[in-house]
Amino acid sequence: MHLLPVMEGLHSSEALNPPFLQAFFQRVKELEARPSEFEDALHGTVIATIFSEPSTRTRLSFEAAAHRLGASVITMADSKSSSESKGESLVDMARVVGGYADLMVLRHPLDGASRLASQATTTPVINGGDGRLGHPTQTLVDLYILYREWGDFAGRTVAVMGDLRNGRTARSLAWALAVLGVRIVLLPGVGLDWEAGFERRILDRFDYRLRWGKHPLFRDWTGNEEARVLEPKGLVQKSLFREEVPEIDRLDALYLTRLQAERGAQAGPGSYPGLTSAQMQNPLLATCKILHPLPRLDELPSEIDTDPRALYFEQAKVGPVVRQAVFLAMLRQDRWSLPHLTPLPAGSPDVQLGLCPNSSCVSRAEGLPAPWRVVGDARRTFLCAYCDGQLQVEYAGCRSTNKVHALFSGAAFRISPENLQPFLDRDAAEKAGYQWGG
Amino acid sequence: MHLLPVMEGLHSSEALNPPFLQAFFQRVKELEARPSEFEDALHGTVIATIFSEPSTRTRLSFEAAAHRLGASVITMADSKSSSESKGESLVDMARVVGGYADLMVLRHPLDGASRLASQATTTPVINGGDGRLGHPTQTLVDLYILYREWGDFAGRTVAVMGDLRNGRTARSLAWALAVLGVRIVLLPGVGLDWEAGFERRILDRFDYRLRWGKHPLFRDWTGNEEARVLEPKGLVQKSLFREEVPEIDRLDALYLTRLQAERGAQAGPGSYPGLTSAQMQNPLLATCKILHPLPRLDELPSEIDTDPRALYFEQAKVGPVVRQAVFLAMLRQDRWSLPHLTPLPAGSPDVQLGLCPNSSCVSRAEGLPAPWRVVGDARRTFLCAYCDGQLQVEYAGCRSTNKVHALFSGAAFRISPENLQPFLDRDAAEKAGYQWGG
Amino acid sequence: MHLLPVMEGLHSSEALNPPFLQAFFQRVKELEARPSEFEDALHGTVIATIFSEPSTRTRLSFEAAAHRLGASVITMADSKSSSESKGESLVDMARVVGGYADLMVLRHPLDGASRLASQATTTPVINGGDGRLGHPTQTLVDLYILYREWGDFAGRTVAVMGDLRNGRTARSLAWALAVLGVRIVLLPGVGLDWEAGFERRILDRFDYRLRWGKHPLFRDWTGNEEARVLEPKGLVQKSLFREEVPEIDRLDALYLTRLQAERGAQAGPGSYPGLTSAQMQNPLLATCKILHPLPRLDELPSEIDTDPRALYFEQAKVGPVVRQAVFLAMLRQDRWSLPHLTPLPAGSPDVQLGLCPNSSCVSRAEGLPAPWRVVGDARRTFLCAYCDGQLQVEYAGCRSTNKVHALFSGAAFRISPENLQPFLDRDAAEKAGYQWGG
Repeated sequence: MHLLPVMEGLHSSEALNPPFLQAFFQRVKELEARPSEFEDALHGTVIATIFSEPSTRTRLSFEAAAHRLGASVITMADSKSSSESKGESLVDMARVVGGYADLMVLRHPLDGASRLASQATTTPVINGGDGRLGHPTQTLVDLYILYREWGDFAGRTVAVMGDLRNGRTARSLAWALAVLGVRIVLLPGVGLDWEAGFERRILDRFDYRLRWGKHPLFRDWTGNEEARVLEPKGLVQKSLFREEVPEIDRLDALYLTRLQAERGAQAGPGSYPGLTSAQMQNPLLATCKILHPLPRLDELPSEIDTDPRALYFEQAKVGPVVRQAVFLAMLRQDRWSLPHLTPLPAGSPDVQLGLCPNSSCVSRAEGLPAPWRVVGDARRTFLCAYCDGQLQVEYAGCRSTNKVHALFSGAAFRISPENLQPFLDRDAAEKAGYQWGG
Repeated sequence: MHLLPVMEGLHSSEALNPPFLQAFFQRVKELEARPSEFEDALHGTVIATIFSEPSTRTRLSFEAAAHRLGASVITMADSKSSSESKGESLVDMARVVGGYADLMVLRHPLDGASRLASQATTTPVINGGDGRLGHPTQTLVDLYILYREWGDFAGRTVAVMGDLRNGRTARSLAWALAVLGVRIVLLPGVGLDWEAGFERRILDRFDYRLRWGKHPLFRDWTGNEEARVLEPKGLVQKSLFREEVPEIDRLDALYLTRLQAERGAQAGPGSYPGLTSAQMQNPLLATCKILHPLPRLDELPSEIDTDPRALYFEQAKVGPVVRQAVFLAMLRQDRWSLPHLTPLPAGSPDVQLGLCPNSSCVSRAEGLPAPWRVVGDARRTFLCAYCDGQLQVEYAGCRSTNKVHALFSGAAFRISPENLQPFLDRDAAEKAGYQWGG
Repeated sequence: MHLLPVMEGLHSSEALNPPFLQAFFQRVKELEARPSEFEDALHGTVIATIFSEPSTRTRLSFEAAAHRLGASVITMADSKSSSESKGESLVDMARVVGGYADLMVLRHPLDGASRLASQATTTPVINGGDGRLGHPTQTLVDLYILYREWGDFAGRTVAVMGDLRNGRTARSLAWALAVLGVRIVLLPGVGLDWEAGFERRILDRFDYRLRWGKHPLFRDWTGNEEARVLEPKGLVQKSLFREEVPEIDRLDALYLTRLQAERGAQAGPGSYPGLTSAQMQNPLLATCKILHPLPRLDELPSEIDTDPRALYFEQAKVGPVVRQAVFLAMLRQDRWSLPHLTPLPAGSPDVQLGLCPNSSCVSRAEGLPAPWRVVGDARRTFLCAYCDGQLQVEYAGCRSTNKVHALFSGAAFRISPENLQPFLDRDAAEKAGYQWGG
């Protein structure tokens, strides 16, 4: 198995950074204003859309974008019609299709599929949605709609509601909102919250803090009047000086998501958080933009469609132009230069912590050991480079002395980064030939 | 739910009128003669083909037409690969895809889907076949083949045979033949006749009359030597003065259709009407063009394929060029002006008669009340604006006086059209707050 | 049923001949070197890809090739979404789609489907893989990779390994290797050998002989140290003069194939022949190119991917450019003239031997009598013109005398070819009205 050491492409919101986003929004706005300027910019280019999960809107949105730029499209819209049904691995598929096309858009049911595919081919890969993890072009659509409304994101408060556990769009958007310094209110359905580790990473990476905020409407939605709020530590606000939980008096945007039944999510009758026409009269939502990645189920009744705050069909409508901008950013840097995306660390093949514990991680389906990357300075938390699954290690080995130490011992502290070999337990260390060093 | 008040686009043969058809045929002929003249006429245009039912020929025919004009195509060929499998409504789908494309071709299993979709988006919608109702581009193909053979339709007699109950192509063609003043002979399979209301609408709309005609071959096909004949009242013919059923001595065209098993149609062994090589020798068919929309089953044996009267592969062959003409008529009126299609009445939202009684009507699947439109002067018959399903009302309410009357009473007669509120029964009227006015 | 009397197009390796191949390889090399030269050569052309079997790589490879030349593509990627599900015949489908497109690529589960389709339409048909029989463009890919490595094929030894019974790629390649005079070593899995008649045809057609060769590795692969070797009779080699089975000391290329489980093939655990990293060290493989049509299963471990002898991802990569050359050879003979393909004999409709005995032959599914063609001078062996299924006849009738004779009798010998009517047995001859002539 030959895998490239880098993960280039657009795999998750982690690739986004403020300079890129600011320039990107500006460019999309120009494209919207002058659609014909780039209409043959990708003439002669072949874009592959490989969709191993049901989808209409995302695939057609990418394909319309490609055609609007004069590119050709080859598409595999149904995994059952494909070599996958003959048992082909994702890595082989990506290598082969990468040989046919100039860019590949991948949708896949497993976490981290886009990242792994990008290691199989030098052809750029764009994540069209993989597992519970990433959907960065949807996030760019969501952000662009807000940018078009607001101009900038400073001081904004955005709530994300629904199936945070399984919904990649909510997770992907939340990370990107933190990139932009936005306050995020979390309104998960009962049993549909995301895992603590993901939130911890947002807090650590962006110097955010977690507090609580309340509003009577929150109880209607989640059964709990109080909601978790993620916000930049620097944000000055009166609630800092009070014991009680402050009221959230305004939402600038509310991002709804449907229950992800295709990923096994379930909700009791009436228990899934949704919006009603009546709630739209509540002052909390007076100037609140209503977003939804669509398709929707009962959480968003069609009565709201004609409300000027409802922007979800606008989201769908700008899907192609936002994706045109992504294609141009990746394939026509000569005419369309943008600040760089943040490269995604590929993980170290030297750190051997075995199989990824996430059963939906693409590495397990492909029979690969996960490449692990360390998070933070404590050297305790490691992430699977594909699916961001976390492991916490307790022991640190030194490749130079061949000794293993408790992680928080002085000896462990003195191991240089390039010599660090983490272990989950002493047993594993000893099996790997390390001696106990105290 | 925001629905547009009009149903623009090409949804059923009801949109066709003689000036449009005459000009259209002429233009198709020119296109056939000079295929390269318009080869980039739709460069930069994106056409979406959304097919929620199995199809090869229709979808590929539309797509070939689009490519022959330089357009790009985005396609969803299988509802199982789509957001429909996540429970999305047709209205949402149409609105979203309408935002991606410049024109949408829709095939759908439910009656009236094309009309409803056209109300969700300002993007033009073409019906590629919906439910049992419409398939207007197939009808244009069928008519064009006859036009190419005959030049005009005056005095022609065309028989339609087979599954008239479930086959949208036969129904759609019959209506269009009435637009052109053609005599129509009906040869349905046993139990496969269309509903009386549809035929009644043809008779009323086109000033046609129903009579009977006979021929020994009819018995071979339908088990009955006599067949219903629809013809313009003005047609002079000797049989008018005789008691007995006159013989049909010549068919100018015979339109066969297959049993629509996918819509639940069944036929006993040997009971489905079909053509044989031997029958082709019968004088009735001496100059009869044989048409079939294909695919075929046993009703049309391949031995007939080489007969010069067999035109069904010619039908298939002109499919793309006819659809090119349709695309040009809808998207390039600057270069390709044609008389207007007849707009389709959208029905009045004020007339509230509840759910459409047709269980295959798209309005029921979408949870919408049917918009009803009145037919004729008697104000008794109302059609579902989507599926043409009929209701007969017995009571008329007056929105101004808030009184309800028996339909044929003098008081009902005096209600002005804008105040008319029909009711199926007195109970419904009283529930709606109307008082009995005698 | 109207079928054309010829089988034009690229249906199987039998169409290949040395002058065509030499010129073809040269042209592909030029295309690889100057990809932009032909980038709009097929502008305005519509290519249909009709795939009635699962496939990713082949369909996408053809479609990428079409787009690289500026052609448009209409595609039917899944038979379940098609008129086939309404019971349409292949002949009807091919005739209809042939009317839409300028060239048709067909993949089909039945043997001989491509040949039959080519008789339904004047539009050229390319076989994208049908049944167990043909996959000529894959063979052109395989050969081109070897050409690029070797320059010419003289004196080369190529082994084909795996599921020779069901794998069309191995069979198709073997025939083409014989066209080029290559020595072929056969390494079938247990119970997965091809039928004797196919090999006999290679031996007869190309003046090859069958011998045995041995090597210890062969036992690892097939359970037998000795393997069949097909080679030109003219090949001078010392083993000709010895009794014992000579050792094969060098393979120039090894062509692996996976078990064709979708065609019902089975292999016991561990019994399917595959390659290991360790075997790559064996001197037999020192300069051996490793080829595989992909997708692969366990027979080709990914550890070998980085070995410079591994060329299977190169095969996949040149798929589009090889298919570009095929398109140009068939559609742009004005700019891209090549020696002609060998036309495929269509069989004589006068030779009536009834249904083809091969239950996977397309003729049986379509309800057609097989057109038979005679092989060799003995006039004993007849091939189904669609699937190459063989019949051996024992009696010869004379259409002029209406007498039937034993095949090897003098009377039979004197029947002129145009009068010959073969019979499987005397009974059939007498039923056909022939009298016994001794």
